[in-house]
Amino acid sequence: MTENGHDPVRVSLGERSYDIHVGARLLEQAGALLSPALHRSRIVVVTDENVADAQLDRLAAGLARSDIEFREVVLPAGETTKSFAQLERLVSDLIDLGVERSDVIVAFGGGVVGDLVGFAAAVVRRGCRYAQIPTTLLSQVDSSVGGKTAINVAQGKNLVGAFHQPTIVIADITALETLSPRQLRAGYAEVVKYGAIADAAFFAWLENNGAALLGGDEALRRIAVKRSCEAKAAIVAADERESGERALLNLGHTFGHALEAIYGYSDALLHGEAVAIGMTLAFEYSARQGLGPPGAGKRLADHLRAAGLPADLDDLPADGDFNEDRIIEHMMQDKKVESGALTLILAEDIGAARIVKDVPVDQVRVFLKEKIAARRR
Amino acid sequence: MTENGHDPVRVSLGERSYDIHVGARLLEQAGALLSPALHRSRIVVVTDENVADAQLDRLAAGLARSDIEFREVVLPAGETTKSFAQLERLVSDLIDLGVERSDVIVAFGGGVVGDLVGFAAAVVRRGCRYAQIPTTLLSQVDSSVGGKTAINVAQGKNLVGAFHQPTIVIADITALETLSPRQLRAGYAEVVKYGAIADAAFFAWLENNGAALLGGDEALRRIAVKRSCEAKAAIVAADERESGERALLNLGHTFGHALEAIYGYSDALLHGEAVAIGMTLAFEYSARQGLGPPGAGKRLADHLRAAGLPADLDDLPADGDFNEDRIIEHMMQDKKVESGALTLILAEDIGAARIVKDVPVDQVRVFLKEKIAARRR
Repeated sequence: MTENGHDPVRVSLGERSYDIHVGARLLEQAGALLSPALHRSRIVVVTDENVADAQLDRLAAGLARSDIEFREVVLPAGETTKSFAQLERLVSDLIDLGVERSDVIVAFGGGVVGDLVGFAAAVVRRGCRYAQIPTTLLSQVDSSVGGKTAINVAQGKNLVGAFHQPTIVIADITALETLSPRQLRAGYAEVVKYGAIADAAFFAWLENNGAALLGGDEALRRIAVKRSCEAKAAIVAADERESGERALLNLGHTFGHALEAIYGYSDALLHGEAVAIGMTLAFEYSARQGLGPPGAGKRLADHLRAAGLPADLDDLPADGDFNEDRIIEHMMQDKKVESGALTLILAEDIGAARIVKDVPVDQVRVFLKEKIAARRR
Repeated sequence: MTENGHDPVRVSLGERSYDIHVGARLLEQAGALLSPALHRSRIVVVTDENVADAQLDRLAAGLARSDIEFREVVLPAGETTKSFAQLERLVSDLIDLGVERSDVIVAFGGGVVGDLVGFAAAVVRRGCRYAQIPTTLLSQVDSSVGGKTAINVAQGKNLVGAFHQPTIVIADITALETLSPRQLRAGYAEVVKYGAIADAAFFAWLENNGAALLGGDEALRRIAVKRSCEAKAAIVAADERESGERALLNLGHTFGHALEAIYGYSDALLHGEAVAIGMTLAFEYSARQGLGPPGAGKRLADHLRAAGLPADLDDLPADGDFNEDRIIEHMMQDKKVESGALTLILAEDIGAARIVKDVPVDQVRVFLKEKIAARRR
C-alpha cells in the first residue's frame, strides 16, 4: 500500500455524496475545506470538554483563517452524553443559536459527539446539514462515516437515532496525538475489524505495522485511517440503510453491545474493547458451527492482544455481573433482530465474514454458557 | 366532481410509495387493509385517551377480524403531548413492547398522535414502519399524509422532527362523527386551504357544499377528504422534502404558527383556527403588495366565517397578549427562514398561491402594526 492521502475518499450516495479528507494538520485547514459547503460564513461547533481543552484552539485558528465565524456548544465528555436529556438540551441550544436548515453544524470530537450531534442535526427543523471532524481513531475510521447517528436509552445502545449523512468529514490524524493510549487501542479494534471482515491483506499489513502505528507513526496512521474509510465508504455506498451487506460492519457488535450494556456503558469497558472481544467470540462461534477454521479466531485474538486489547471473556474487568442469559437478553435488543430471530456476522476466515440470519438463540446460549463456565474455572 | 372513494389515492415516492384509503366504516376493515403490509400479525396501536374512548373498540374489532394481535399505548390528549418528554416515554414503551424495524406501529388519532408517533417511528431503531389511521378532519386531509412528523419545543411548533413516510393511510370518515363541531371546523380550514392554494373550482365547490359537509353529509365529506388528499399527494410526490413547491402547503402557516405560539398552543386557538386567520392575513398582505385583487381575501374570509371559523385578528380570543414584534419574532422561527430572510406563501388569487422569498420583514411588521391598531379601535 502506498500513501496517497491527498485525494479525499468519496462516499457515493447520489445527491447525498460527500468527501472524507484524511491527513495531517487538517484542523488548520478546516476553514478552507469547509468553505465550499457553507451558505453563509457562520457555523456552530459542538464538542465536549476534553476536545475543547485539547484541540479547539487549533480548529478556531483554522476557521479564522477563512473568516468563518463560529459559536461553540461544549458538552460533558463520556458515553452518558448520548442521552435524551442531552439531545433535548443540544437541540434547544442549536435553535437558540439560530441554526437554519442550510447551515452546517460541526461535530468536533469522538463517537459520542458525532453520534449525538448528527442525530440533533437530523431532527432540528427536520434536518440540518452537518460536518464531522472526528478526533479519535474510532470516530475517524468508523462512526463519523456513513450517516448512522444515535443516542442510547435504558434498554440499549444506539436504539434511537437516524440515518443522516454528513456534508463532509475531516479526519486530522494529528488530532490523535492527544488521545490516551487506551482510547487509541480501542479505536484500533475497529481498524482491525475491516481486515477481519473482507480484507485479509490489510489484516496482514496490520499484523506487521500495528505496533508502529499505535506507537505514533504518522504515515502508517494515515494509511490505516484511509484504508478503513475506503472500506466503509464502499459498503455504505452499496447499502446506505443496512438492508443487506452493511450489516457486515457489525462484526463483533452484537456480542459487544451486550457486554457494554452489562458494564453500564462505563469506562470499565470501552466500545472498541467490547468490539474486540465480540469479534473473537464471533470467530470462535463460527468455528464451533463448522463455518471456518479454529485458527482464524486464534490469529485474530493474538493480534488484538498484541495491540493491548482484550480478546475474550477472560479479559473482561472482574466486576462484571453477567451470565449467558443476561448477555442473550441484551443481544435480543439488536436492531437486526427480525421476528424474534438473531442475525449475526460470522466468519469463514480472516477477511471472509458473512451475514447469517436465523441463528438459533439457544445454540448461542450454550456457547456462552460453556465460555463462562470455562472462565470461572 | 363525482364520488369515487373506492380507489385509494397513491402517493408516488418510488420505494416509499403508499396508498391513502378514504371511505366510510374503514376501521371495521382495518385488519384487511393492513394485513398485506405486515411481516407478522402483531402490531402496536398508539392513540390518545379521547380516541381510545370513542373509537378503539371499532379498530379492535376490525383487527380481530383479520387475526391481528395488538398492544395499545394510550397517550394524554392535547397539543402538549407533542413534547420531548412524551417522545421519550413512547420510544421506551415501543422498545419494551418489542417493536422491530419491520413491524408496523399504528398512529390512531388526530394530528398530535400522528406527528408524535410518526416521529417515534422514525427514530426507534433508526426507523420502523408505521401506519396512519387519522380520526380528525385535520389529520385526514393534512397531517397524516406526506411524512412530516414532529414535536414542539419551547421555541416553537414542529421545530424538531423528521421526514418519515407512512406505509399506509386509512382515513375513515365515519370516525369524524364523534368529533366536536369546533374540531371539525378547525380541520375544515385545511380543506379550504387546498382550494385557496391551487384549485379555484374546489374552492367554489366548497362555497356551495361546505355547510352540508360540516353538517354531516357523508358523501360530501368523502369527496372533500379525497380531493384534499389527492392535492397533497401530488405536491408531496413532486417535492417530498420541501425544497420547492411543497412550501405552498404552508399557506397561512407562518402567520398561524406565530399566533398559536402566542396563545401557548392551547385550546384558546386551535391549529386550524390559526391557519384560517393566517390564510386571510396572507391574502390581505398579498393585496397590499399589489400581488392580487383585494376581493380574493374578502371572499376567503367570508367563506371561512360562514363555516364558523375565525378569519382575522379581530376574531382572536380577547386574552391574547401580543403586538407586531412578538408575532414577527415567532415568524422568524419558521423553518423556511434562510439567512435570516422570510419566505411567505402569498396569493395572486383564490387558487393561485405562490412562494415568495426574501419578504422584507419590516414591511410585514408595518402591515401587522396597522392591523393591530385597527383592531384596538
